[in-house]
Amino acid sequence: MEKKWCMIATWEMAKEGVEKGSSILQDRGNCCDAVETGVKTVEDCPEYTSVGYGGLPNEECEVEMDAAFMDGKNLSIGAVAGIKDFKNPVSIARKLSENRFNIFLVGAGAEAYAHKNGFERKNMLTEESKKIWEKRKKEMSEKNLSPYDGHDTICMIALDKCGDMAAATSTSGLFMKKRGRVGDSPLSGSGFYVDNEIGGAAATGLGEDIMKGCLSYDTVQRMKRGISPMEAAQSSVRDFSEKLKKIRGYSGAMSLIAVNNRGEWGIGTNVEFTFVVGNSEKVRVYRAVPMENKVVIERLKDSL
Amino acid sequence: MEKKWCMIATWEMAKEGVEKGSSILQDRGNCCDAVETGVKTVEDCPEYTSVGYGGLPNEECEVEMDAAFMDGKNLSIGAVAGIKDFKNPVSIARKLSENRFNIFLVGAGAEAYAHKNGFERKNMLTEESKKIWEKRKKEMSEKNLSPYDGHDTICMIALDKCGDMAAATSTSGLFMKKRGRVGDSPLSGSGFYVDNEIGGAAATGLGEDIMKGCLSYDTVQRMKRGISPMEAAQSSVRDFSEKLKKIRGYSGAMSLIAVNNRGEWGIGTNVEFTFVVGNSEKVRVYRAVPMENKVVIERLKDSL
Repeated sequence: MEKKWCMIATWEMAKEGVEKGSSILQDRGNCCDAVETGVKTVEDCPEYTSVGYGGLPNEECEVEMDAAFMDGKNLSIGAVAGIKDFKNPVSIARKLSENRFNIFLVGAGAEAYAHKNGFERKNMLTEESKKIWEKRKKEMSEKNLSPYDGHDTICMIALDKCGDMAAATSTSGLFMKKRGRVGDSPLSGSGFYVDNEIGGAAATGLGEDIMKGCLSYDTVQRMKRGISPMEAAQSSVRDFSEKLKKIRGYSGAMSLIAVNNRGEWGIGTNVEFTFVVGNSEKVRVYRAVPMENKVVIERLKDSL
Repeated sequence: MEKKWCMIATWEMAKEGVEKGSSILQDRGNCCDAVETGVKTVEDCPEYTSVGYGGLPNEECEVEMDAAFMDGKNLSIGAVAGIKDFKNPVSIARKLSENRFNIFLVGAGAEAYAHKNGFERKNMLTEESKKIWEKRKKEMSEKNLSPYDGHDTICMIALDKCGDMAAATSTSGLFMKKRGRVGDSPLSGSGFYVDNEIGGAAATGLGEDIMKGCLSYDTVQRMKRGISPMEAAQSSVRDFSEKLKKIRGYSGAMSLIAVNNRGEWGIGTNVEFTFVVGNSEKVRVYRAVPMENKVVIERLKDSL
């Protein structure tokens, strides 16, 4: 029997990618192709300054990228971190997921692998990103500002008509990060997790804090206990955010997307956050605003 | 009130390190110092070919190391991966855990950080390790052997007399790994996790498979639900190992150590595995052998 398909992604910038992924899913395509195509679409766009081409650089003015891919059918994972000058990190991550060993590669080793496997090289720094970097560098020296800002990881999760699921993430990480800094995006259980038998979750926000709570795995485990994706993602973010505040006084930004294997979706967030959902009805953009004890979700615009 | 202290570590090679850590804990020392001192002791020993000095190299004959540190009081994490030529990766990881941003650094970025922060450089390749590498390289070309072997991560978890907990890991990773390959050891939730309010867990085995199940976080969550560390670690390994066999036919080696905040400990494993426990009674070395439906644990020898 043909099942309900669904796709969910972080940030409004995912809209075109979700439209492409949704077309694949609607045409009985595979969830792995849907998330890879969707994430590549965002990576290729120079206007989005937190992912792929045009991503904001580290403190040395280098665009270092992290990406991951997970197949919910066999739990295969592939990931890269601190990789420079390749067009589509998510595709390199997907290729790595076919391996039994050496599935997570970083830095020069990841670049050597990508080169040997024929992935396209590209200088990922744009003139626009370089200007933003120069401006920020100047502001920092003048005003003693904290350098860190902008960590909008693109995450996508898809459920296809066969009931298979996949997840993918891609980011250029914290703007002005130290060389070699890795966030949660390429880390299984923190930045992403998906299991055909339950569902998937993925995260965006301050990676340093998200990895302290393994929020994606935590959300999937809550769904495993029968909780809806909406309640699972919201309680996971709320519980962990409150815990961090209790034990050390503050919590970084954290936003989660989740979808279960019946195509029900949810989000949890402790900051204002936009996201995109595609299903047989439409591709829709939403904004989520955290309030006292709940998250208010409003529709922004439609497409397709 | 003074509480029960406890320390647990993976592999018999941890014995001297656990003795040193146990002395610290017995003298009312801090759990963070205990695990760092314990892991450093193993890193410094050239005889152990899977950790630190004398660790087995990657396919390029470079010793690339991964390490992590987690403080269970505030959930602070520090980690390095793919770092070369520094004497004590675990100490670099601990230092990084003091940061709010940039807590996980890889490759050249990790080395630049360690250099700027005064950590001791050392060529970690020994003559002995180089000989093992050359022999294996020859065997591989002659007999078409799989290159991957040896992934004995050192993991330590400590509970001190104040009731605080910490965990640390260190490894040179898979022998003959690809340059830049990262396993589970520096990944929060997969290689390690510790929370004062519950307990801690850490893993050794095939990192590629351990990260598919986020086994350390999973074990801590089982303990959170009131399950003993022994049952938590064993059920986590058993459930996930069986799941992998069901969905793709095989499971890699995975062994877990766990201890809760009352000083009760446990292990779970799907291969024969040695480990060390230190508490007010003694420092003891054990061997665990997985049987049909249980793990048989026998004492090997005592010390102190």
